[in-house]
Parts: sequence; structure tokens; C-alpha cells
Amino acid sequence: MSGPLNPDWIAADWGTSNLRVWAMGSSGILAFAESDDGMGKLDRAGFEPALLRLIDAWIDRPTRIIACGMVGARQGWVEAPYRAVPCPPVAPNALISVQTADPRLQVQIAPGLMQAQPADVMRGEETQIAGALALHPGYDGVFCLPGTHSKWVHVSAGEVVSFQTFMTGELFALIAGQSVLRHGMAGDGWDQAAFDGGVGDALSRPEKLAARLFSLRAEGLLNGLGADAARSRLSGLLIGAELAAAKPYWLGQPVTLIGSERLSNVYKQALADQGVPARTLPATDCTLAGLVAASNQNARKA
Amino acid sequence: MSGPLNPDWIAADWGTSNLRVWAMGSSGILAFAESDDGMGKLDRAGFEPALLRLIDAWIDRPTRIIACGMVGARQGWVEAPYRAVPCPPVAPNALISVQTADPRLQVQIAPGLMQAQPADVMRGEETQIAGALALHPGYDGVFCLPGTHSKWVHVSAGEVVSFQTFMTGELFALIAGQSVLRHGMAGDGWDQAAFDGGVGDALSRPEKLAARLFSLRAEGLLNGLGADAARSRLSGLLIGAELAAAKPYWLGQPVTLIGSERLSNVYKQALADQGVPARTLPATDCTLAGLVAASNQNARKA
Repeated sequence: MSGPLNPDWIAADWGTSNLRVWAMGSSGILAFAESDDGMGKLDRAGFEPALLRLIDAWIDRPTRIIACGMVGARQGWVEAPYRAVPCPPVAPNALISVQTADPRLQVQIAPGLMQAQPADVMRGEETQIAGALALHPGYDGVFCLPGTHSKWVHVSAGEVVSFQTFMTGELFALIAGQSVLRHGMAGDGWDQAAFDGGVGDALSRPEKLAARLFSLRAEGLLNGLGADAARSRLSGLLIGAELAAAKPYWLGQPVTLIGSERLSNVYKQALADQGVPARTLPATDCTLAGLVAASNQNARKA
Repeated sequence: MSGPLNPDWIAADWGTSNLRVWAMGSSGILAFAESDDGMGKLDRAGFEPALLRLIDAWIDRPTRIIACGMVGARQGWVEAPYRAVPCPPVAPNALISVQTADPRLQVQIAPGLMQAQPADVMRGEETQIAGALALHPGYDGVFCLPGTHSKWVHVSAGEVVSFQTFMTGELFALIAGQSVLRHGMAGDGWDQAAFDGGVGDALSRPEKLAARLFSLRAEGLLNGLGADAARSRLSGLLIGAELAAAKPYWLGQPVTLIGSERLSNVYKQALADQGVPARTLPATDCTLAGLVAASNQNARKA
């Protein structure tokens, strides 16, 4: 019977909704586990047991665990104060150590970033950006991380220079799922032409956005607009509004998208329609590469 | 012991959330009653009992009841098909009769209005507009009915010419109550300067709206933006976005606001800052005057 894995260290992506952990060895990933023990459902005393539920069997000696994401928020396990941009996305010396009851756990949390003006914050995305830079050393330009809270990020000379958050994914979920429009957009099909029309309308006349939402309901009642077309057009209107406001980031710039394959491709197409080339990087690859970078930086210090 | 009131007729404002009824005599209102038996919580068989719960004791003989609002929707008591603009807001011959089990009830529903292009619909507001025209005969110009679904309406020569719906109130409730911004805007105080700033920012740079929402959260985390200021600024941003999109309605036009006193005054101030004078009419006065107009028109026909 074999003993525990005892990896070199453990990488942890600990967001609001989920916890994902990777056992890391010299050859790469040895094991992976995940749970829905996100920060949002844990009180302060719940973090250590939630972590042990996934990694208890992996280790029988003291082991470093590097975590990123909302675990470091004020309502998280231990607050990891934001670092102010401009700064490298992940930095030596910046990891915050956590006191644990179990002596095997040597937990460190990567802090998020803040921007004073316009006021903005991120937690977790900074690690993905560090990972993207590790995967493509020397990249200079714009990242877009689409999602619940989309981020547009300008990186130069290895530092995050500025960034801007958009509540696009959260607004879509609220409007499509809970507003009066929900009656006309059940399901999950996709209508690319309706999406493209929404993006185009929002970009060309952004001041008309507020007038275009209820029309989706009226078009369904009067003209039989289908649920897939209505939902896709809503998505296009909201992503178009994001693109209109983020124009200073992408206008005339190549963009690197970090996100899920489906959402990244939606943004990639919308940007292509504006003449902007974009390449995509898988979010999980970037998260893991960023945690590796944080781990190495920290090890060099030790 | 006195018998039932037996009013000349009964006016009913029957929306999604509430039912309000007035017993009407030759000298005006004889009695009033209300319940939360809105259309949204009733199935088809539930409407007659809900009405009787309020008016059963008022009548012992056949009595006309004129109702407006979502009671005439497809999911309502009986569907009252939309009338197409341009048309008078309430018209002879347009009331839809309802079959009832109780022989005392002679119920008629005022239909809503539809507009083919841009697609739009209203139910209930047409009666308020008819009432406003009855209170101010010959009015020619723009009405704004702020609320959950704000309406901007152009009236000329006694007819509704065009209208546009904005989901402003519903968006505010969703974003302030359920999005990540809710953490920074609990309570119900008001900060007029923050509101004014939001309206001004949304009107002057409407294409930046999507970038301004998450900033409310970040300003709270980083700069101590208070809950009242955050909530008032959100309200200003959303109303400003509505005003930006509704500009063809109000630019250079006097506006008549029909709504609650608080909300009407908020819009009145925002319009005044744009150099647009607005007067206000109480929503309930307009509803009742509109139902009286519908009743009279119908009586003339009979």
C-alpha cells in the first residue's frame, strides 16, 4: 500500500464559488481535486477544514500551499491587502502567510491589485496575468479576462499599468434570469446573428442602450422574437456596452483573452468585427502558471 | 342598519402586484379598498374571488367595473389585445368584457397600447395618460411616467403618437439589491450631489456607463464611499442613461411627469439641470381620471 503523495507544493485557486487544488511535483501536476467550498459560503473557521477535505490524504509532512483569489478578501480566510498598480502582477515578498492549526499546512495567499483612480480592484486575475506573462515572456499590451466581472488590463514591461472592471456577466445573469425579460429568453441556445446585431448596435449608438432592453420583451410579445435570439441579442448589447466603454484599451491594440473557451471565442469574434485581432489563453492554464510563478519567486527568496 | 353602498360604478387599477378599487358615485369617490392580489399571484380562476374580496359588501345589484392594467395581459383574467398607436389612449368601443359567475359583476378591461417599430407595449399607463389629458384638456407634448418600467410618451391632438419603455426601476432594484454592489449600498438615505453627479456623468459620456458600475464597489472598498452616496450615484447613472436614450423625447420640450411624488421630483430635478421644465401629476389622480374617462366614453356609447 502506497503512502501519501507528498507533493513538492500545492497550488490553490480559491474563488467565491469554488476551491481547486493541484498537487505539484518536479514533473508537473501529480493530482487535482476541487469542491464548491468557495469563499462565499465559508466563515473564517471554515477555510482550514475546507482545504483539508481536499488535501488531507495527499500529505503527511509540512507542505507549502500557494493560494490566489477571494480567499484573500476581507471576508476571506486572511485579508491579503491589495498591492497598488503600477506593479508586477505577482511579486516576491508579497505573499501573505496564514496561521493554521494543522502543522502540515504552510499556507500563503497572493494579494490582489488595486488602482486608485479610477478606483478598481482585482483578486485572482493578477495571478492569471502573471501566468500569461510566464507563458509568453515579454508580452506587452492588453489582456481581457471576460466573465462575471470582466477585466481589461494594460500590461507593460512586466507590470500591470492600469485596469478596468465591467459587471457584464453579472448583469447578464440578473437581467436574463430575474428581470421581466426572463419570460422571453429561457433556454441556452445561441444565435450568432442576433449577438452580432446587439454588439453592433451598442457600439455604434451606446447612448441608446437603456432603450434597447425592454424592446427584447416587446419584440417577443409583438413580433415573435425567439428565446435564443433574445438572449443572444441581450448578451451582444451588454458585451457591446463593455466594448464601447473599454475602447481606450483595445482600439488599435492586439488583445489577449484569458477565459473559458466559449466566452473567449464570443469576445474574439466581437473584437474581430471591430478589426481587432485577439488570441486566447485558457484561464486554468494561466491560473496554474501564475501560481507556479508565485511559488518560484517565493522559493528564490527562501 | 344601512344596506350596501351600491355605487354608480367601480373603478379598478389592477397591476402586477396590487389591486385597488374605488366605489364611484355622482359626487365622486364613495369608498376605496386595496389588496395585494395583483395579476402576478393569481391564476385565471383567482381573479373573480380576488375582486369580490374587496367589493362584495358594496353591491347587491349588477354593477359596472372598469379595470385597467396587467389584469388584461395574456397571463391575466382575460386578454385585452393591445391597440396600435397612433390612437387615443382610451377609446369608446375598446373595453373588453369579462364573463363572471357572479351576476352582480359587469367587468370591462381597458386594453393596453402597442407600437410596432420600435416594438413596445404598455398596460395601465394608457389610462393614466387619458386621465392626464382629462385633467389638462388639449395638452400636446411629452409625458414621462417614471417607475419600474419608465415610459416616455409623445401625445399630440389627443392621440398617443409614440412611446418608449426603459427598465430603469427594475435595473436599479436588481443591481442595488442583488449584485456585488449590494454590499456597499444598504439602507435608504439619499445623497443629492451623488445623484446629480451620476446623472451628469451618464448624460455627458453615456458610452462609459458600463465602466462606472463596478467603480461604486471599488470606491467603497478603497476610498470609503458611503452607502447613501453609492446608492444615489447608481440611481443617477441609471436615470442618466435613460435620459440619454430618451433625449429625442425631451430635448427642447416641456415634460409632464406622472408618478409617485418622490420619484417625479427626482426626475424633475434631473430634467431641470438639463434646462427642461417639468410639471408633475400624481399617478393615482391620473389613473382614476382615466378610468372615469373610460367609463364616460363607454356610457355615452350605451
